[in-house]
Amino acid sequence: MTLWGRFARGSGNFYGRVEDDRVHPLDSPKRRFFLRDLKILPPVVPSKIIAVGLNFADHAAETGSKLPPSPLTWLKSPGSILPPRGKIHIAFPEHRTDHEVELAIVIGKHAKNVSVRAAARAILGYTTAQDISDRTIQRGEGQWFRAKSFDTYTPLGPWIDTEFRPLAQAISLFCNGERRQYSTLDQMIFKPHQLVSFISQSLTLDPGDLILTGTPPGVSPIRAGDHLEARIEGLAPLINSVV
Amino acid sequence: MTLWGRFARGSGNFYGRVEDDRVHPLDSPKRRFFLRDLKILPPVVPSKIIAVGLNFADHAAETGSKLPPSPLTWLKSPGSILPPRGKIHIAFPEHRTDHEVELAIVIGKHAKNVSVRAAARAILGYTTAQDISDRTIQRGEGQWFRAKSFDTYTPLGPWIDTEFRPLAQAISLFCNGERRQYSTLDQMIFKPHQLVSFISQSLTLDPGDLILTGTPPGVSPIRAGDHLEARIEGLAPLINSVV
Repeated sequence: MTLWGRFARGSGNFYGRVEDDRVHPLDSPKRRFFLRDLKILPPVVPSKIIAVGLNFADHAAETGSKLPPSPLTWLKSPGSILPPRGKIHIAFPEHRTDHEVELAIVIGKHAKNVSVRAAARAILGYTTAQDISDRTIQRGEGQWFRAKSFDTYTPLGPWIDTEFRPLAQAISLFCNGERRQYSTLDQMIFKPHQLVSFISQSLTLDPGDLILTGTPPGVSPIRAGDHLEARIEGLAPLINSVV
Repeated sequence: MTLWGRFARGSGNFYGRVEDDRVHPLDSPKRRFFLRDLKILPPVVPSKIIAVGLNFADHAAETGSKLPPSPLTWLKSPGSILPPRGKIHIAFPEHRTDHEVELAIVIGKHAKNVSVRAAARAILGYTTAQDISDRTIQRGEGQWFRAKSFDTYTPLGPWIDTEFRPLAQAISLFCNGERRQYSTLDQMIFKPHQLVSFISQSLTLDPGDLILTGTPPGVSPIRAGDHLEARIEGLAPLINSVV
């Protein structure tokens, strides 16, 4: 298991490998810091975040949507990323705003027109994300970008696991200790390698880009004061609070 | 009139002020180059491109769409930008793919929750863009991002005019010398300052970000071999070819 994170210490930011409670900077691997002495940043700074909709059949059913014949994609603003332990600021408390746990693919190499088979080489690793969604705006506008791109609406991290292989691991979201969302990764309609290949037929994927692979059933509203834990079996939990 | 562009010379890229056929680098304004000795790059490298749909009433009518009650926005991939004189590569020749001339706002300062009145201070200037659109995908998927984000689908430039003020200037698109699209900028439903203010209520605008303000009526298909000129009165024409 190789875990990478991004950290701040004093005025500098750096990438580092995480080993238990220690962090080894990528640039000088013989140094090490205690994790507790560092500020944890989002593990990647993407040029684009490509989200995939309705990729779990059960979630499509709960939204009353038909399954798309090919991956349904849109972009989220890169500025919406929130670090682990960061606070989700609800933009419109009078709107229904939902949590959505998702497995995030982190791209490692430029990829254009890659086959499903070659897609593995374009993937650096995986991490956990949330796609916080303002349902009132999403339903009202039809285009989904704005409803999901408010500042802080993409919690991400904590680590990129370069050896994680999505199989049938559990994916779940806990709100105040209660399980709200649940499925297993084998329930995804389009698998990560298929998504990378499909998206690369449209545009060039760049290192650091993120693909959010869709959310399992059980989405439900969040409120100020909520404590959220997005858990994917085998990855470190992504913990955030709501204000 | 102050015009800024981005240029390549040898292995270096730089921003420069354009005066007739000369370019003065931003970093060393006493030097000057002949424009003809430089490669013209897209004038800005945005962290995000926010597009606005159905912002000319006539265009909304030609697409059979109702006017949106507030600006209808989505993101285009920043990787879709094409420099002036660059070639548009049609991704799916069997699909209907249309030209769309648009006035582009270039953001100059971080902006979050700015009023319509304060929006002017967040704007660096204006340039010309096209929002090339694969109608087959756009209609099939509902989400508009992918149909408009293929590599080369956002021609941009050539210059950022920091003194341009959108009033009632003509906006038009010529294909092989024939005028296809036409309107005037006073026909925009939501004006540039309103768009900046509205979008800044959702997310933080960053320097270099682009807002494409919508296209006038007359969209029509492009084909390999076409010569496209996107013209906004007062700005330099944006010229591209199709392959």
